[in-house]
Parts: sequence; structure tokens; C-alpha cells
Amino acid sequence: MKNNTIKDVVEKLNEHYRSEELFMPRDGRRLPDRAAVIEVIRDLRHIIFPGYFGKDSALEMDPSYYAGYRINHLYDELREQITIALQYQMKEEGARERAQEVTDRFFSRIPEIQKQMLKDVQAGFDGDPAAQSREEIIFSYPGLFAVYVYRTAHVLYEEKIPFIPRIMSEYAHGRTGIDINPGARIGEYFFIDHGTGIVIGETTEIGDYVKLYQGVTLGALSTRNGQQLAGLKRHPTIGDHVTIYSNSTVLGGDTVIGEHCIIGGNTFITKSVPPYTKVSAKSPELIFKTPEERREKNDLWEWES
Amino acid sequence: MKNNTIKDVVEKLNEHYRSEELFMPRDGRRLPDRAAVIEVIRDLRHIIFPGYFGKDSALEMDPSYYAGYRINHLYDELREQITIALQYQMKEEGARERAQEVTDRFFSRIPEIQKQMLKDVQAGFDGDPAAQSREEIIFSYPGLFAVYVYRTAHVLYEEKIPFIPRIMSEYAHGRTGIDINPGARIGEYFFIDHGTGIVIGETTEIGDYVKLYQGVTLGALSTRNGQQLAGLKRHPTIGDHVTIYSNSTVLGGDTVIGEHCIIGGNTFITKSVPPYTKVSAKSPELIFKTPEERREKNDLWEWES
Amino acid sequence: MKNNTIKDVVEKLNEHYRSEELFMPRDGRRLPDRAAVIEVIRDLRHIIFPGYFGKDSALEMDPSYYAGYRINHLYDELREQITIALQYQMKEEGARERAQEVTDRFFSRIPEIQKQMLKDVQAGFDGDPAAQSREEIIFSYPGLFAVYVYRTAHVLYEEKIPFIPRIMSEYAHGRTGIDINPGARIGEYFFIDHGTGIVIGETTEIGDYVKLYQGVTLGALSTRNGQQLAGLKRHPTIGDHVTIYSNSTVLGGDTVIGEHCIIGGNTFITKSVPPYTKVSAKSPELIFKTPEERREKNDLWEWES
Amino acid sequence: MKNNTIKDVVEKLNEHYRSEELFMPRDGRRLPDRAAVIEVIRDLRHIIFPGYFGKDSALEMDPSYYAGYRINHLYDELREQITIALQYQMKEEGARERAQEVTDRFFSRIPEIQKQMLKDVQAGFDGDPAAQSREEIIFSYPGLFAVYVYRTAHVLYEEKIPFIPRIMSEYAHGRTGIDINPGARIGEYFFIDHGTGIVIGETTEIGDYVKLYQGVTLGALSTRNGQQLAGLKRHPTIGDHVTIYSNSTVLGGDTVIGEHCIIGGNTFITKSVPPYTKVSAKSPELIFKTPEERREKNDLWEWES
Amino acid sequence: MKNNTIKDVVEKLNEHYRSEELFMPRDGRRLPDRAAVIEVIRDLRHIIFPGYFGKDSALEMDPSYYAGYRINHLYDELREQITIALQYQMKEEGARERAQEVTDRFFSRIPEIQKQMLKDVQAGFDGDPAAQSREEIIFSYPGLFAVYVYRTAHVLYEEKIPFIPRIMSEYAHGRTGIDINPGARIGEYFFIDHGTGIVIGETTEIGDYVKLYQGVTLGALSTRNGQQLAGLKRHPTIGDHVTIYSNSTVLGGDTVIGEHCIIGGNTFITKSVPPYTKVSAKSPELIFKTPEERREKNDLWEWES
Amino acid sequence: MKNNTIKDVVEKLNEHYRSEELFMPRDGRRLPDRAAVIEVIRDLRHIIFPGYFGKDSALEMDPSYYAGYRINHLYDELREQITIALQYQMKEEGARERAQEVTDRFFSRIPEIQKQMLKDVQAGFDGDPAAQSREEIIFSYPGLFAVYVYRTAHVLYEEKIPFIPRIMSEYAHGRTGIDINPGARIGEYFFIDHGTGIVIGETTEIGDYVKLYQGVTLGALSTRNGQQLAGLKRHPTIGDHVTIYSNSTVLGGDTVIGEHCIIGGNTFITKSVPPYTKVSAKSPELIFKTPEERREKNDLWEWES
Repeated sequence: MKNNTIKDVVEKLNEHYRSEELFMPRDGRRLPDRAAVIEVIRDLRHIIFPGYFGKDSALEMDPSYYAGYRINHLYDELREQITIALQYQMKEEGARERAQEVTDRFFSRIPEIQKQMLKDVQAGFDGDPAAQSREEIIFSYPGLFAVYVYRTAHVLYEEKIPFIPRIMSEYAHGRTGIDINPGARIGEYFFIDHGTGIVIGETTEIGDYVKLYQGVTLGALSTRNGQQLAGLKRHPTIGDHVTIYSNSTVLGGDTVIGEHCIIGGNTFITKSVPPYTKVSAKSPELIFKTPEERREKNDLWEWES
Repeated sequence: MKNNTIKDVVEKLNEHYRSEELFMPRDGRRLPDRAAVIEVIRDLRHIIFPGYFGKDSALEMDPSYYAGYRINHLYDELREQITIALQYQMKEEGARERAQEVTDRFFSRIPEIQKQMLKDVQAGFDGDPAAQSREEIIFSYPGLFAVYVYRTAHVLYEEKIPFIPRIMSEYAHGRTGIDINPGARIGEYFFIDHGTGIVIGETTEIGDYVKLYQGVTLGALSTRNGQQLAGLKRHPTIGDHVTIYSNSTVLGGDTVIGEHCIIGGNTFITKSVPPYTKVSAKSPELIFKTPEERREKNDLWEWES
Repeated sequence: MKNNTIKDVVEKLNEHYRSEELFMPRDGRRLPDRAAVIEVIRDLRHIIFPGYFGKDSALEMDPSYYAGYRINHLYDELREQITIALQYQMKEEGARERAQEVTDRFFSRIPEIQKQMLKDVQAGFDGDPAAQSREEIIFSYPGLFAVYVYRTAHVLYEEKIPFIPRIMSEYAHGRTGIDINPGARIGEYFFIDHGTGIVIGETTEIGDYVKLYQGVTLGALSTRNGQQLAGLKRHPTIGDHVTIYSNSTVLGGDTVIGEHCIIGGNTFITKSVPPYTKVSAKSPELIFKTPEERREKNDLWEWES
Repeated sequence: MKNNTIKDVVEKLNEHYRSEELFMPRDGRRLPDRAAVIEVIRDLRHIIFPGYFGKDSALEMDPSYYAGYRINHLYDELREQITIALQYQMKEEGARERAQEVTDRFFSRIPEIQKQMLKDVQAGFDGDPAAQSREEIIFSYPGLFAVYVYRTAHVLYEEKIPFIPRIMSEYAHGRTGIDINPGARIGEYFFIDHGTGIVIGETTEIGDYVKLYQGVTLGALSTRNGQQLAGLKRHPTIGDHVTIYSNSTVLGGDTVIGEHCIIGGNTFITKSVPPYTKVSAKSPELIFKTPEERREKNDLWEWES
Repeated sequence: MKNNTIKDVVEKLNEHYRSEELFMPRDGRRLPDRAAVIEVIRDLRHIIFPGYFGKDSALEMDPSYYAGYRINHLYDELREQITIALQYQMKEEGARERAQEVTDRFFSRIPEIQKQMLKDVQAGFDGDPAAQSREEIIFSYPGLFAVYVYRTAHVLYEEKIPFIPRIMSEYAHGRTGIDINPGARIGEYFFIDHGTGIVIGETTEIGDYVKLYQGVTLGALSTRNGQQLAGLKRHPTIGDHVTIYSNSTVLGGDTVIGEHCIIGGNTFITKSVPPYTKVSAKSPELIFKTPEERREKNDLWEWES
Repeated sequence: MKNNTIKDVVEKLNEHYRSEELFMPRDGRRLPDRAAVIEVIRDLRHIIFPGYFGKDSALEMDPSYYAGYRINHLYDELREQITIALQYQMKEEGARERAQEVTDRFFSRIPEIQKQMLKDVQAGFDGDPAAQSREEIIFSYPGLFAVYVYRTAHVLYEEKIPFIPRIMSEYAHGRTGIDINPGARIGEYFFIDHGTGIVIGETTEIGDYVKLYQGVTLGALSTRNGQQLAGLKRHPTIGDHVTIYSNSTVLGGDTVIGEHCIIGGNTFITKSVPPYTKVSAKSPELIFKTPEERREKNDLWEWES
């Protein structure tokens, strides 16, 4: 029984394998190794925040040895994955050279990313009364992790590397519930609190000192045209010093939230909001009932909108 | 101090262990191994999408060897876990035979699931302007992963296997924030974008060409009767070609969203919607204040609903 | 090219390392090991729910051996991490002694936590018609996992241990999308269904028999004063027997949801609600259009609020 | 090229697989898992010598928890492997019951083995001026390890369990170069120094206070009759208080080395030696040559017997 | 102190690294990965003896899937290592092509090696009265393992692949104490018993039905000319049906042991021995002393040659 | 049955644990971690021979980063183990300081050890016609590995560190069959060929350009006085340019093998040998028999000395 079943299944699968080019890329091309890309993201964090992750002995070591050794390894690994990604896409020779150049520029920007991350840490500490220390933010705030991954993936997005930025951002998405498309452009002192359910679309622009809470969507008005919309500005622009509270939605490429706006929780915005404006959700309806009423009727008194 | 504490704790725990049957199943019955079930889900993906996950050498290998070898292993592992689950529930002899039959039917349906998944990939590509390729969707879209796990777990749900479908779906839930109950019935060309926070209840029915965004709940109106409601149709029915935007909620077993409807973001729906209808959330209130006003009053101008 | 780049990057990073005290804690102080803390949380679950996780042989073993052996290991590991955390904070000698005392009290409370968890399991079974057994809840309900981690982390929060409670709660947050600050105070028979996107703030108080659905925020009205608000009551109080449906938001330290209230989905509440009240979101607007109309105009008929 | 080669090889191998019963045991019988057996041997050492191997926390723990927990696991593992081995051999039902009984007797003898091992440690300390402590012997003397494995495997040999005793002894052989057949009978206070190359045959008998050095063979005179000799006494008997120096060979089932004998290095003995006898190798020949002679003839002056 | 020491050590090591070409191969050439080569040897054993090693499911699987899948992986791995080895040596382009050809021929010979191994198993069973089954020999006889590795490595030696054959044979040497140079030529039905300390030199020739015991050296008379001797016949020739007992030494490229000879233990042979000859070590000297004598003199009566 | 057995065994073991101080060292003292010591030995080899072991990227990296990073880790690990070893022995405070000093001196000598190893590699290449390259010797010669471990362990032996040198040398012994006591003193250009079964005692002295073959023992005449002999010169002295062929034995602290001696295989030497002397084993006896004789008598014609 088992062996016959397996034989049948194998035959049918093989048929699919042969007929569907997605399964068996032509020309021996390979796809990047997702695990390797994630490893880069995880290890790079040891460079950016030495002493925080793993049992590493960064604290006592000559920092040159520490950074030099680890970056060397990361460099090789990332270059390899970029090469694979470019070879898949380009189908020609220049891939290896371009991968070398991109990797080089990527690492040149690491010190800058580190500086930006320190500002993001500060924004988190200033913005969250529950934060007991900046160390705690580095250690355990998922928002900071998502922003770190975004800032890293964004460099590769700008270099037009296929697959890898998205693998990175989806890794962060999976771990934090925060989905920042690597194409978004985000300013300094950015703070995400709690963060689960946040979506920041590909063409979103965000200014400095912006604070977002869980469940905020910065999205497109419509996606019905699908691939025809690719590349167009579909997502909103958020000015400096804006705060958007939880579960609010801002949609549309022409929608601009002016600087110093406060967007209340559970709002749904599809038009621009001028600077220094506060937006609030409307009040809900209340329905009262006494305990006596409920008991008399053995009333389950459940939710009916 | 330490040893005394531990001794005390051990004594008290033992008392609980003895008195609470949940902890020490009678008759030497075992529970399925969660890690093994997850391993099946992870490995099966290598069969469905060969060449995408891990450093596997599928691309160069005779696909018969590839599929045959891996399915054999998966078959044994899954049959073992199904046997354990059935033995726990049935408390009698037929478990092993039934496990064999179910496993057999499960694997017979793998080629069909693979075909469905290709349609889901296509739906994702057509529906998301940010998708750069179909490969990227297979690789990194959490929605596709959740749908893959759902389609797999659903087969076992239909076979009435306890524990295992839920372990599978909660694994996907943990990784993607998308919670599709394995009992739901979902059509073809299904696309979930971003996905975090989506909940699709056990008796939900979804047509073809449906698209859901993050935070959408397809839920029950009330759960206050708890176990008395088990098995009843408690969740909505969604017609073909429906799109439901982010953070919207559709509740109730009698609620039907007609075909070609568009449900706007942040809406809350507990009644049926006829076909070809658009539903929108109401506009929020805006409160303006000039920068001068704010500065004069040293106004913190914070959120008060 | 590569070696020059790396050399440059290393030099710049070293400069940052030297100038920013966050990176190189003085006095050889270390930070807790995140992986070790998570290991404690994972392993403790084997004690609380013996026979459910891993391939462990708890079922056949003399439970004293089982619990004694495993707690001994957990004790040492947790004491070590608490010591490190206290040394980082206290900068002085008493850390080791205090870590010993706290660890002792922590383990003394494990049997109590176990009892509470059984009540939470019962609440889950009573509250969810999709739950097929209590075993399934222990096994795979993310809400139960998050509550387990909360109940554990809360003990250490009360002991004012830095870093560790937050590492624990963010671990649960990452795995479940449920973010319960370890400072919250939560009663018995607590049930979270689905759970993704839930946020429960630091000073929240929750009574007995409370049920929360996905996307519920129990948050602060404003965080603009940041660290000045630390320690103040900023989050709401939820009475006994309250149910809050999905994606609703309750904000503010003075906001009290009275006992037996039902808060409908997608509501946004910033004022107190008296007992026995039902709160509902307002109805959305419907816009109809016939299929003919749509076809004629080649109307994409997309979302415009 | 590659795929054709593999296809050919696979075909030929399959032919062999089908035609040679050694490869595909009938009746679904399995062979014991070598890795599992070795794991038992390695882990049991933690029980016999608590605190010496691995980072185990035996030292601080209540020893009941320590021993109880670990023996429980070892018990299950060993019983499983014994069951498999008996099922392979017996081809019938009683295997599981007998495995249970044997495992039970095996563990009942562990305390006795532990006592014997302490005597062997003492013999090592008394016998080796290079030993700096008894701890060092436990820790790092390969002879002690080989004797430990022998004493363990011998119990199972006496129980006539197939495969497993030999897997154990060959594991020790591989790690130490000391090959003690589990059938040998060895007294107390046994010491092996250095040990590489020692062979102790199946029917060897060794008294108390015996000391062996590297390269000693206690073997059979002839093996030409092969399987016809199985079970016969083919190997020598060594009396109490005998020392046999390095690279000596004692052969034959009738050969008895009397008590208090000293067998010099590089001797070759095939006849019995009475008690209180010293046996020495004969002196070698010396060939002198002056440096001048060597230089004159540009003489390489190499070894010709 | 620590950091200064490390700095000094690093400087000195760097000096060595730069000045010694062995450490930093020019031209970016790499060396084979020892672990990968060993992995090939270990995994190939699963093909040759299916069902014996690891928990593999060979027994129930369609053998084509089993062999095909595993050989594909082994093929790639071995080809990669051969390529590296050839590139290191050849310093030019043809390496990759030649590696492909050699790997192809190597795998074509696997079925033949498998057949030879079965004969070696039979020789072991016929030759050792302590062998309880042929399965036991496959499972646990180090001699069989060493012969398996030799037969495999010899194929690559004949193909003149650098490094890899020696890595293989030294792996077997480390695990078994049996050192068979991959250059040796060995006939069928070859059996090594116990085996520790056996050395078989590069130009040794061994006939069919030969049996060797532990400590046998088949070596060169002199190695003083070192590299000048490379390639010459330096080691003996052993005829069919010869048995050489333990710790015997046979030296010299012109030394021929005729067929059906029996070489006794502890002999030292540097000249040819005609067929059908038995060679024995001379008898040792015996020195008697009564217990009384020993006690009177408090005589330690130790070894003085 | 099982649980009762385990309970009994646990009780008896506990009795032993309590009564035998070897098992439960007082004062909470710990023993070094064997695995950690072995890790140091394995990793240090990456520093001494960069590019040869593991997939390390030493070849392309700035060697300062490479050596600095890895030595830092090794330094911490070794210092920790030395501290533990000294605390066990000294039972007092100075352990930590002395461990620091010893570790420092140890690493200061690493460059010197590296230089010595290069000379040993050269000796191996010059001395073995089967060596195809110096790289092969580094890669796979067990003799070189044993000498590397010896040279490393010897530094700690000279520092009088307990346990650790012996753990190191027994690790090499287990892997190579070569047992060099870390107390021996060995000159430059030392070469061991094959090596299995070699024993070099604690007080052995070996000059420069010495070559040893497998099975050579440089041992003590007698060990009957055991610990009374500790520290005395018990093992021989070997002059410069001496070669000792396989399976020879040289015994005694007063035995001196003069420079340029050649010691033939299978010799047994207990007296000094003057310089420029060749020593040979005596010839064995030959016993002839014709094939006809054997056939007639159906003569098994086996070994009888």
C-alpha cells in the first residue's frame, strides 16, 4: 500500500516538476539560500550592537579583531548570496563583479547604519515610559529589530538586488509581526512600539521623529491593477514629528500626513491631513442593561452589532 | 536553601501531577510530538516547491529519486504521529490501521495540493504590485506559507485526526501571525497580503479569487456558549472575487459577503452584504490647531478621543 | 577592494565602539544571555505541563526524579542570569545574594503558577467551541503560551529584576504576536483567543474570567511625556467577566471597564464604561453598484473611503 | 554524464540489494542502532562517575534526582535496543518480555559495577607513577574506559544478547585501541597502562591484581577452523598478581600463566608458565660501526635484519 | 596583560603567516575540506551496507529512491572536493573537467566495491570463531571498516587524486588503528582481525584469502633516503592464503611471502619466505624463583631483561 | 518492575555517592571540562596551521583579525579551565591569578610552537617517501597531530597545571594511538611515522632529528613501586639522529641510545647502546612443509610455537 502510493505520487509530482518552470529553473540557475541570508542579518547585529547578542566575548576583546573577523565572514557570505541572486536574474556574466561592488558599498555603509540605530534607540527610550533602559530596547524591543532589518535591507533594495531584501524583511516580519517593505524611505529617530500588525508599503515615505503603534497600516488605496502599478507611488507620505496610534490605517500615494499631526487609534484615513492636526475615531454606541434584566431573561446578551 | 526549596517544589508538583489527569495520561498513552509534526510541514514544502528551501540539490537530481526518498521519510513520520494521535483518542486497537489509511490518502492528495499552490502563487503575483517575481512569493511571502499549511492541515482535519491539524495551523500562526483554522473551506487563487493578525474561523467558507489583507477577522458573533456551539456554522461565507481590506471584521455564521464585493479597511460587518457592493468605514473627525496655539499653551496636545 | 573596505569599516566601527558607552559597558559588566533566559522559559514548561513538549519520558518516570532533575538545572541557569542582570544594574556586591533569594522565591511559586495555568486551560476550553480538548489547548494555543510566560515573568517583575522579565515577554510576543507587559496584573481564568496583535500595557489590571480576542489593545492615552510617565497608572482596569472582541482599543489609566461588560469588535474606548454595558462600533456605509454598471465603465471600483 | 552514471549505479546496486539477504533483512526486522548503544555507554558513565564528564550539575544536585532521572532515560533506551536485537535473532514474540527482564537485571548490577570500577581506579593509581591523582585516572586513562565498557558489555554477553555487547566493546576499541572481547572473564583491581594494541580474546580468564601493558595479546593459537571453534576455550588463563609487559603475546586455551608471574616485554608465549616465574625476551644482536667508517663509505647504514 | 599578550602573539604569528608559504597558499587556492571527505566515506557506507548505519529507513523504501537520492548528494560532494584538490595541484584549468570524469568512474565502481566487501565479510565470518553472525562483522568489526575505506580510497589513488585518498585512509587509521596506505594492492577475501597497529605500506601487494592480525607491519626496510625512494617498490608481496599472526613485521620491496605460508606472531622478517612455510619466533628465556625466595628477600623481582 | 528496579539502583548509588569522596568533591570544587580542553586543542590548530582545518576563511582575511579573534576566545576558555584545575588542587585563593599568568605565558609561546611544528613537518616530508607534499602531512599525518598536542601540553606540564596536560595527551592518544606523556622532553625535527601503539614515558628525553615508527615503547623497566617512583627518571634517553623501527621497546631511566644509532624493528632493549650502533632482532625459525605433505595429512598446519 505505502510503496504503491508513494510510487504514484512520485510519478505525478515528476510530471508537475517537468511541466512547470518555476520548479526547475533552467540553465542550472540557483536561488539564494534563505538560511544564509538570515544568518547575515543575525550576525551583523553582533557588529552593530556588540556585547548584546549571544555569549560573545566582544566586551573584552580588541574591537578590531572582533569587527574584522566577523565582517570578513559576513562579507563572503553576503557576496555569495548576492552573486546567486544576480545570476538568477541577469542570466549573464557581470553578476560576480556587480555582487563584489554592491557588497563593498553595503559594508561601507554599516558604520552609518550603526549611528542611525543609536538614534532609533534614543527615540525608543524617550518615547516609551515602560522602557527601563536603553539596553532593554536594544535587547528586546521587536520594533528596533524590525527597523534594524529595514535599514539593512533598504541598502540592498536601493542597489536593486532581487530576492534578498525581501527575504530579510520577511524574516523580521515573521519574528515581529512588523512588515516594512525594504523600498520604504524612513527618516531618523523612528520608533515603533509593540508593533505587531504594522504594514509599511513599498513607496511609503516617513520623516524624522515619527512614532508608530501596533496595527498601523501605511498602505495603497487599491491593488486591483496588480503588476500594472509596480513602481508607482502607491503609499502615503508621513511628515516629521507625526504620531500614529494603534490600528490606524493611512492609504494612498497622494495622501500626506502633515508634520506634527497626531492620528488617533482605529482611524481610517484616505485623504491628506494638514500639519498640526489631530484626527480621532468617532465614539462608539453604548447599550446598557441591568444585571436583573440579564438574569430574568437568562440573557446571553452577546455581541450583535 | 536551594536544595530545600527544590525539595518542597518537587513535592508540591508531584501532588499536582498525581491529582490532575491532564498531566499524566492513563494507560501509557502518549501525545503526538509537536516537533515531529512541524518537521513534516517543513519538509513537505521541499517536495511541493523543489529547489526553494534549504541547500537541497533537487535541481540537478533525477526528480524521482528526490521525491521518492523524501516522501518515504515523511510518510513514516506522519503515519507515526497520526497513530499516536489516534491511539490517544480511540483508546483501542484500530488506530494503527486507520493511521495507515489516512496517511495513504494524505499523500495521494499531495500532487493536487501542489497544483493548488501554483494557483495561489499566481494570485499573489497578479495581486501585489510589490511582488517582483513569482519566485519571490514562494520564497518569502508569509501568506503563501500560511495557505500551504492550511491546505495540508485541512486534509487531516477532514480525516478527523485529532491534535495534528491544529499543531500545524498554530505553527503557521506563530510564524506568520495568520491564523487559519484547518476546518475552514477555501477556494482557489486565494491571496493573503501581509497577513499579520488575520483570523479565519473553523466554519468559514471562502470562494475563489478572494484576497485578504492584514488584520482581517472572519469570526463568530459570539462564543459565550462555548462547547455547546461546537460543530455549528459560526463563521461567515465569502463569495468569489471578494477583496477584504486590512483590519476589517466579518462576523457570524449567517453572514454572507456576496461575490465581487469590496470590503473597505477597518469596517465591522455582522450582517450579509449583497453581491457587487462596496462597504466603507465612516470618516473620522479632524481637530485643527495652529502651531502657534500649541506653542503658546505649551500644549502637549495628546490623544483624547 | 574587499580588504580595504573591511579595514575602513573596522576603523569607523571601533571609533563608535569607543565613543558610545552602550556598546562597551564599563567595569566588565555583562548583560544577561537572551538565549539562556529563553531556554529557562521553554524548559520550565516541561515542568508545568509534563508530557506535552519534546520527546520527554515524563510519563513513565517517577515524577520526583523528573521534576527534581530538571528544576535543579533550571534553578542554576536562572540564578546565573538574575545575578548578571543585578550586577549590571547594582554595580555592587549584594547581587549574588539577592539573586539567590529571588530565585528561591521564584521556584517556590511554581506550583502556584501551575495551578493557575490549569484554570486558564479550563477557561480556554469553556470559551472556544473550536477547541477539541483541553490537551489541544495546552499543546497549541498561543494565548495559553503567552499567559504562561506572563505569569512567569510577572514574578520576576515584582521582584524588580531588570531585563529578564522583558526578555521573556518579548520572546512570547515574537512567537505569538501577543504582547503582555510583565508588569500587568491579571486575574484567574484568563483566556486569549487567536491573540495576534494583543497589547496589554504595564499598569493594566484585569479581573477574573476575562476573555480577549486578537488585536485588542489595553493601552495608554498618550506617551508623549515619555520617561516622565514611568511608574504612573497609564493603562485601563478591566473588571471580572468582561469580554473584549477583536481589534478593539481601550486606553487610559483612569478608564475602567465595569464587570460583565461586553466590548464589541473594532471599538475605540477612552472613557470608563459602567458594569453590564455593551459597547458596539457604529455601522459602516454601504455603496451598491450593479454588475452591469461595473462592466460598462470598465470600472475598477476600488476602495476610496 | 552524472545522471547516467548514477542511474547505472543505482540499477546495479538494486540488483545486489535484492539478491543478497544481508542487505534487506526479511520480515521487516531491524538492527540495533549503533549510535543509541554508544549513547548508553557514554551516558552511563555519568552515573558511575558523577561529576567527571560533561558540564553536568551532579555535584550540587540531590543525587536521587540525578541518578533517577538519568537512569530512567538509559533504561528505556537500552531496553529498546535489546528488544530490537532479540527480535532480529529470535524471530518471535518473547523478545519484548525478555528484553525487559534483561534490562532490569542489567541495571540492578550497576551499583556493583561502580564498586568494581573504584577498585580498578585504585589499581591504576597504585600501579602508575605518572598518575598524579585518582581523578586523573577517571578522567583520562583509556585503560579505565576500556575496562568500564568491558564490565558493562560483559553483563549483556552473559545474558546472551546479540550485537550489543560487541558494538560496545568495538566502540571502546575504536577510542582506545584496547580490544577486550565482552566474553572474557576479568577479576578485580585490573589495570591497563597505555593500552593501545591490547587484545583480550573471548575465552580469556584473568585473575585479580593483574596489570597489562600496551600491545599485549591474549589470543588463540589458531583460528583456521573458524566457526568450528566457536565456544571452545581458545584463549589463555592469567593468574592473580601477574604483570605482562608491552607487546607480549600469550596464546592458547590451555596456556596458563601462574600467579605472581612477570612476563617481560616482546615475549611470545604459547605454553603454560608456572607461578612465580619471570619470562624474558632474548637479547638482540648489536652491530657496531664507527662514525668514521660510516662517513668514509657514505654509508647509509640502514636496517637489514 | 591579556590584551598585550594577544597583541604580541598576533604580531609574531602574522610574521610567520607572511613568510611561510605553507600557511597562505598563493593564487587563492584552497585545500579540500577534511570534514567533507570524511562525510563522503561515512555516507557511502549507507549505500554499500543499506540498513546498518544510522536510523535510516532503507529497509522499507524502494531501493532506487534510496540509492539514487543518496548517491546524488555524495556525487556532488566528492566532485567538489576532487575539484579543489586538483586545482590546488594543477594550478590550471582542466581541474573541473577531470574531477567530473574521475567522480564518474569512481561511482561506476561502487557496485564492484560492494561485491568485494561481501567477500571480505564472508572471510571475516569464516576466519573468526568469535564472530556470531555476518551482520555483527558489518556492524562492528574495525577491520572490515578499514578495508572498506581502503577499497574506496584506492580507486582515487589510482586516479592520482592528491590529498583525498590519504585523508580517507587516515580517517580509518584514527578510528581503527589500522593504517592501510591507499596505494597498496589487496586481493579478495581479505580479513583483518582486531587490527590495531597494523601498517600496510604504499607498494605492498597482497593476494587472495590473506588474514592479518593486530600489530602486523608490512613495511619498508629503510626510509633513510626519503623522497628519493618515492614511487619505488619498497614494501613486501604477500601470496594467496597467507596468515600473518599478531605483531609480526615483514619488510622490504623484494621480500615475498609465498602462498600458503603461516607467519607466527612476533616474528621479524626481512627476507623472502618460500610457499608452504611456517615461520616461528624463537622461544623466550624463563627465570624461576620460589615464592619463598621472593618473600625472604622482600624481592620486588621486577623486569630486568 | 522498571520503577522498582530504578528505585533500588538509585538508593544504592546514592549510598556510594555519599561514602566515596571521589564522586562528590567537597567544597563545591569542580573538575575541568574535558570537552572544553579538547576544544582548545582543536581550535588552536587553526591558529598554528591557518587554512588547513574546517571551512575557515583564513586565507582571504587580514591575518590579524583572524588570529586576534580566535586567540581571544581560546585565551578565555583555557584560562577558565586552568582556573578550575588549580582551584581543585590548591583549595585556596591564588588560583585565579596564577591561571592568568600561566595562560599568558602559554600564549606567548604559541609562535615558538608554530616554528617548531614547521620543522616537524619538514622532518616528516624528508623522512617518508609516501608523503606527496608537506600539506598532506599537516592535513592527515597522525604523528604530526600527536606531536602538536604534545608540544602544547608540555608547556602546561612545565607550569605544573594538573589534569589539563593529561586530558590533552589522552585526546591525542585516543585519536592516533600515540601516547606521549606531556612530561617527556623532545627535540626538533621529530618525526613519527604511522605511530599507532607508540608510548613515550614521562621522563623520556629525545634529541633532534629522531624518527620513531609504530609500536615503539620508550618505557620504564619496572613500575612495581608505583607512586614511590613518581618524579624519578624512569624512561630512556634517545640521542640525536636516532631511528627506532617498528614495535621496538627501549626501557629504563639509565638506558641511553647514543646518537646516530639505528634500532631495528621488534627489538627489546634494556641497556644503553653506544653511538653509531645498529641493533637487530635475531632471526626467527623457519619450518618447511611441502604442499603434498599438507594435502596428504589434511594438515591444518597451524601455529604452534
